[in-house]
Amino acid sequence: MNKFAVIVAGGTGTRMGGEIPKQFQLIQGKPVLYYTIEAFLKAWDDLQIILVLPEEHLELGREIVDGFFDHKRIRLTAGGRTRFHSVQLGLAQIREESIIFVHDGVRCLLSQALIRRCFDAAMEHGSAIPVLPAKDSLRRVTETGSEPVDRVAIRLVQTPQTFHSKILLPAFNIDYKDRFTDEAAVVEAFGMQVHLVEGEEANFKITTPPDLHLAAWMLEQAFR
Amino acid sequence: MNKFAVIVAGGTGTRMGGEIPKQFQLIQGKPVLYYTIEAFLKAWDDLQIILVLPEEHLELGREIVDGFFDHKRIRLTAGGRTRFHSVQLGLAQIREESIIFVHDGVRCLLSQALIRRCFDAAMEHGSAIPVLPAKDSLRRVTETGSEPVDRVAIRLVQTPQTFHSKILLPAFNIDYKDRFTDEAAVVEAFGMQVHLVEGEEANFKITTPPDLHLAAWMLEQAFR
Repeated sequence: MNKFAVIVAGGTGTRMGGEIPKQFQLIQGKPVLYYTIEAFLKAWDDLQIILVLPEEHLELGREIVDGFFDHKRIRLTAGGRTRFHSVQLGLAQIREESIIFVHDGVRCLLSQALIRRCFDAAMEHGSAIPVLPAKDSLRRVTETGSEPVDRVAIRLVQTPQTFHSKILLPAFNIDYKDRFTDEAAVVEAFGMQVHLVEGEEANFKITTPPDLHLAAWMLEQAFR
Repeated sequence: MNKFAVIVAGGTGTRMGGEIPKQFQLIQGKPVLYYTIEAFLKAWDDLQIILVLPEEHLELGREIVDGFFDHKRIRLTAGGRTRFHSVQLGLAQIREESIIFVHDGVRCLLSQALIRRCFDAAMEHGSAIPVLPAKDSLRRVTETGSEPVDRVAIRLVQTPQTFHSKILLPAFNIDYKDRFTDEAAVVEAFGMQVHLVEGEEANFKITTPPDLHLAAWMLEQAFR
């Protein structure tokens, strides 16, 4: 089976405070994005990567690809105005029947086990959405105040959201809606259910300086 | 106004892997619980602490209190079989009209600003529950699969859950129910609404070795 990872790194990184978007911040001399790409390249020799970056970061992305990787397995493409549009532009490059991983560039600590788990579930069920249970108590804000939410049934959603191309490619032939915050929502709008798999605590999004520090420490400790 | 902080540290720390429960793990030579207690003692000279620990940890708790603090402001008491019962036992020590903070012992990074914010809101509204917006996409597991949850209205709940004694003390004269996972739920069962205030990213629960490392680094960087 063909395999593609569409890695989306569209953030402009304003939450980090600095000028360098978080996907380009360095850990042990290499950008966050390096570790993300490397995890997928390592999983299978024939997996191909489509790296979707904002127009203004394409040159920086090209430097990372040329500097660290066998660039024959990595294509770069410019993103759109939302995550939906960026993923859509990435998927437009895929013609082959395949399993497609859509992954956040700033989740650089995902394990090989998680990638395999998503692949296997997508092969069997057509989709695989990694999720974790909610550790905190949850509340819902209402018009008159707030109310408790039963956290037992709630799951926090991660990536790689993984799909068979027969589902994902036609699902993305749809007009954008605000509620398309992830690929699962697009596939559901296409009329399909999604299959959940177990996520990983370490597979968090790097959005703050403490997140970046923690990711560096976890890579050092070989948590991945 | 009198002020009490009921600090609950009932965890047996099985998630940490080691034998030492997480509230007793060391950061720069001092237990996590030290930093939590110190944050509240620092807030007001007249604030008193009721530290609720499992029976088997009372001696360790006594050593921390005697070793680091003015023990006249700290009472120790043995906890019960659930968080509800532990808080109930702690509250049984309070007779005075007061503002009462109920706080997780393993959230050691809360700021003075958060303590003040909770106090002010509890004075004005009777209660203050610190919450954060949900950063991840959320799903709800259903009988037939799962469905997206609109995260815009969802809040992650932290502590200190803060109340006027006139509300909290009578609310805890109630029989235990499984859904009493926090004090807000107990107060709502008593027929009162709770007031939400803004929480803090740094005010996370230490439950894993990476959490402990991150807390140590954040204390070092004076994130608190």
